Amino acid sequence: MWKPDRQSKQPLYEQIADHLERRISYGEFPPGSLLPSERKLAEQLGVNRSTVILAFAELRSMGIVESRTGSGTRVSMTKWGATPKHTPNWSRYAEGGSFLPNVPFMRKIREALAQNPGLVDFASGELSADLAPIEEITALMSRHRYTSYLGYDNPQGYSPLRQALVAYLQQYRGIQATESSILITSGSQQSLYLVTQCLLSPGDAVAIEDPSYCYSLPMFQSAGLRLFRLPVDRHGARPEDIRSLYKKHRIKMVFMNPNFQNPTGTVLDMERRRQLLDVASELGLPIVEDDPFSLTAYDGAPPSPLKAMDAVGSVLYIGSLSKIAASGLRIGWMVAPHSIVERLADARQQMDFGLSVIPQQVAAQFLKSPDFQPHLDRLRMQLQFKRDLVIEALRKELPGLVRFTIPQGGLHLWCKLEPEVHDGKLLEGAIRRGVVFVPGSVYGSDSGFVRFTFARAPADRIGEGIAKFAEALRELTGESSVRNSTE
Amino acid sequence: MWKPDRQSKQPLYEQIADHLERRISYGEFPPGSLLPSERKLAEQLGVNRSTVILAFAELRSMGIVESRTGSGTRVSMTKWGATPKHTPNWSRYAEGGSFLPNVPFMRKIREALAQNPGLVDFASGELSADLAPIEEITALMSRHRYTSYLGYDNPQGYSPLRQALVAYLQQYRGIQATESSILITSGSQQSLYLVTQCLLSPGDAVAIEDPSYCYSLPMFQSAGLRLFRLPVDRHGARPEDIRSLYKKHRIKMVFMNPNFQNPTGTVLDMERRRQLLDVASELGLPIVEDDPFSLTAYDGAPPSPLKAMDAVGSVLYIGSLSKIAASGLRIGWMVAPHSIVERLADARQQMDFGLSVIPQQVAAQFLKSPDFQPHLDRLRMQLQFKRDLVIEALRKELPGLVRFTIPQGGLHLWCKLEPEVHDGKLLEGAIRRGVVFVPGSVYGSDSGFVRFTFARAPADRIGEGIAKFAEALRELTGESSVRNSTE
Ligand SMILES: Cc1ncc(COP(=O)(O)O)c(C=O)c1O
Ligand SMILES: Cc1ncc(COP(=O)(O)O)c(C=O)c1O
Repeated sequence: MWKPDRQSKQPLYEQIADHLERRISYGEFPPGSLLPSERKLAEQLGVNRSTVILAFAELRSMGIVESRTGSGTRVSMTKWGATPKHTPNWSRYAEGGSFLPNVPFMRKIREALAQNPGLVDFASGELSADLAPIEEITALMSRHRYTSYLGYDNPQGYSPLRQALVAYLQQYRGIQATESSILITSGSQQSLYLVTQCLLSPGDAVAIEDPSYCYSLPMFQSAGLRLFRLPVDRHGARPEDIRSLYKKHRIKMVFMNPNFQNPTGTVLDMERRRQLLDVASELGLPIVEDDPFSLTAYDGAPPSPLKAMDAVGSVLYIGSLSKIAASGLRIGWMVAPHSIVERLADARQQMDFGLSVIPQQVAAQFLKSPDFQPHLDRLRMQLQFKRDLVIEALRKELPGLVRFTIPQGGLHLWCKLEPEVHDGKLLEGAIRRGVVFVPGSVYGSDSGFVRFTFARAPADRIGEGIAKFAEALRELTGESSVRNSTE
Repeated sequence: MWKPDRQSKQPLYEQIADHLERRISYGEFPPGSLLPSERKLAEQLGVNRSTVILAFAELRSMGIVESRTGSGTRVSMTKWGATPKHTPNWSRYAEGGSFLPNVPFMRKIREALAQNPGLVDFASGELSADLAPIEEITALMSRHRYTSYLGYDNPQGYSPLRQALVAYLQQYRGIQATESSILITSGSQQSLYLVTQCLLSPGDAVAIEDPSYCYSLPMFQSAGLRLFRLPVDRHGARPEDIRSLYKKHRIKMVFMNPNFQNPTGTVLDMERRRQLLDVASELGLPIVEDDPFSLTAYDGAPPSPLKAMDAVGSVLYIGSLSKIAASGLRIGWMVAPHSIVERLADARQQMDFGLSVIPQQVAAQFLKSPDFQPHLDRLRMQLQFKRDLVIEALRKELPGLVRFTIPQGGLHLWCKLEPEVHDGKLLEGAIRRGVVFVPGSVYGSDSGFVRFTFARAPADRIGEGIAKFAEALRELTGESSVRNSTE
């Protein structure tokens, strides 16, 4: 991202005015379009708001932009020639389409992280660089020759990767599969997207866990699905709830994340797994099993997936390298009946023509390499270590004010805050102090929770991050009586 | 893909029965699901149909499958336990969703290529391995260290790639852009997908060229768009047609591929470009400019894009490395107003969490490397050489029977067949003889055309491929009087 040059002799505001003029003349801000607010630009460029105000004034004096109080600064319509020309109303197009934007909290977090990479990041659900097998992957890439043909790939994905996954699934997850039953996807995310877009129709009812990652995904709403909640307790979702949802709403599919569930860390109880599969087969109901975390089990004994116990073929199984290797590889997979794999491969072809062959080659080699198992062993230890750092810091900074169940795997700690505070204000205060987390409401219907991802932040900043969070929380609880009396 | 082992002592039919039993027991063919037809399996496995019949009989005798005349072979429902259990009706799910499958001809071609990689491929719109910069890319990858953090990427794509594209767009396309106005996509395909899904609503009218690549894309129909044709003549589409479509149908967007159009090879006339931009600005109508082929201009002077002439910001510009480097990289880009880039980046995040960082690093380095320009120079010469091979072969094999305009860039030759033949029968006959092409009807409303991609097949097989095509055509024209009299 462009930033003004503080060494330059040209004043900052002039640099900013020049930069904006360039972007306007390139069409990035077409005639009539709204520029970012003074506040937002100041944040992005790391300058005082007054500097942006001066830059806008400069542009205004040149007739390039117009400001009207309360409605921001717009690019002039007349700048572009004598006759009034019409630029498409781009902002109306941007609001069009049935595809919904991400939830506001997630966009806010993303913006905060983009503007200030120095934040302690308890929000991004991924591994830190030192936990990811970057060295192993770098070594693989420089050792191997990628001379294969770089053409459009097989719609199901790179065949050697599917072969490597057959062995991986059997060895690590007890799942029997053949190459032809595997679809390679851009992470679990694309698997979920394909399922919601291509196997379900608008108006269909589905069941999702509450809280759950699914709850944070507007793709379910974008697909026009009616969502019904499966409350998650300490042992996961309750199979009998599925039966009653089926009776009442004819749910068409169930989405589950049974192992170290995001965000709660819960493992679905073994007895419930059996009941769940019984209910599913009784009702002929498909279960989508999203299983990205199981190999992080700190004791080295990952829970067995539903798919491995599924005798009648009720389960669509989804896996990913994101949480056990690196999310930037964008490698996930689905194991599904033939008809489903064919359908989704065909649809994906139309959406993006499949994944790049290169990361698929890297992933295949990594899965087969002798580095893979030692990496997993190290990862589990490091995750447990970081989990303990967060817990220790919370106990020190907020004794008695947060409650949680200690997770035995996964990347997240799910906390109930004892004081009642306003989600959005807490997030804002935390960002101001230099830390981000995800408000629990993003994942479900109950308020008063937060999700701390302990995998992403460097170990030596976890204590500092929690201390900042504690400050933000205390500020609000100090304020809360004031807030309550004035609102 | 699994194939039976012809060296083994176990009879082929038994190997096939075992293999199918395994896939059935793994859930790939759940109870009640249909197995592939005898004919299709025989083709896939490279065995006689009688061998598959024996394998099915074996499975039937074990009670694993059931066959009913006329309705194929299904996996038994009762195989799976004493009490009848219910497997989800997967094939009904596979038929669900509003996302339409690819057009039948394209699926047929894909299947034929998957089953017989030895076909002479005039169908896949991409470069052959010797035309792609595989060596350059391999060298880049082994020289450089990919030690960067492999986390979830910036939603707009890898920043150094966007920087490299700013320089590329200026130098090669005369387009002024900043990093913040670029969205990296999985090829032009994903750009088109995002535009149709996120900027338009069901019922919206849009204009597409006829014939055109867009015509072959069910994504337009899947998004519920109403499509209106812009006939393409020797100089491209006619701007006045846009005006009348706007008057009649209030079209919301125009899709154009102005430079070496797929499939016709046409270059939009300079005068029409000016008129087109005038019409667009007069009506406030956005133009999506899909520009994957321009740098293949055989004379080294690519036509300038609409985007570079666009003074009011009407044009969304789409580019790709697929046709000038390698389609397996899956690297494309869009240059668009700020509001559009933000919206599409957010949506794409939900669909697949963005592209893998690795191919983006490769692409950034390749664009900046001293190898890039020499690669382009070589590519242009090789494409022209292959174009001439196809033309020479057509003149030799089918003198007077095909008509075409000689393209000055791109990967395709668009041919009108003089004899009237049945598209599907011609394709079938060609596949039987060992060659594939794309029937012209896939790209538009007129029949009697074929598209030959000359970039994909090895130069030394082009003559042979056209000879086989000519045989298939002659077989049908020999038959055609018979067909006409009996139908
Ligand atoms: C339960 C769950 N499913 C899917 C995903 C998507 O991950 P990816 O697409 O990187 O595999 C996440 C990421 O946070 C997740 O927590
Ligand atoms: C005109 C046109 N646009 C887009 C595409 C999609 O290509 P890619 O996604 O590989 O860039 C193609 C491929 O054939 C094409 O011909």
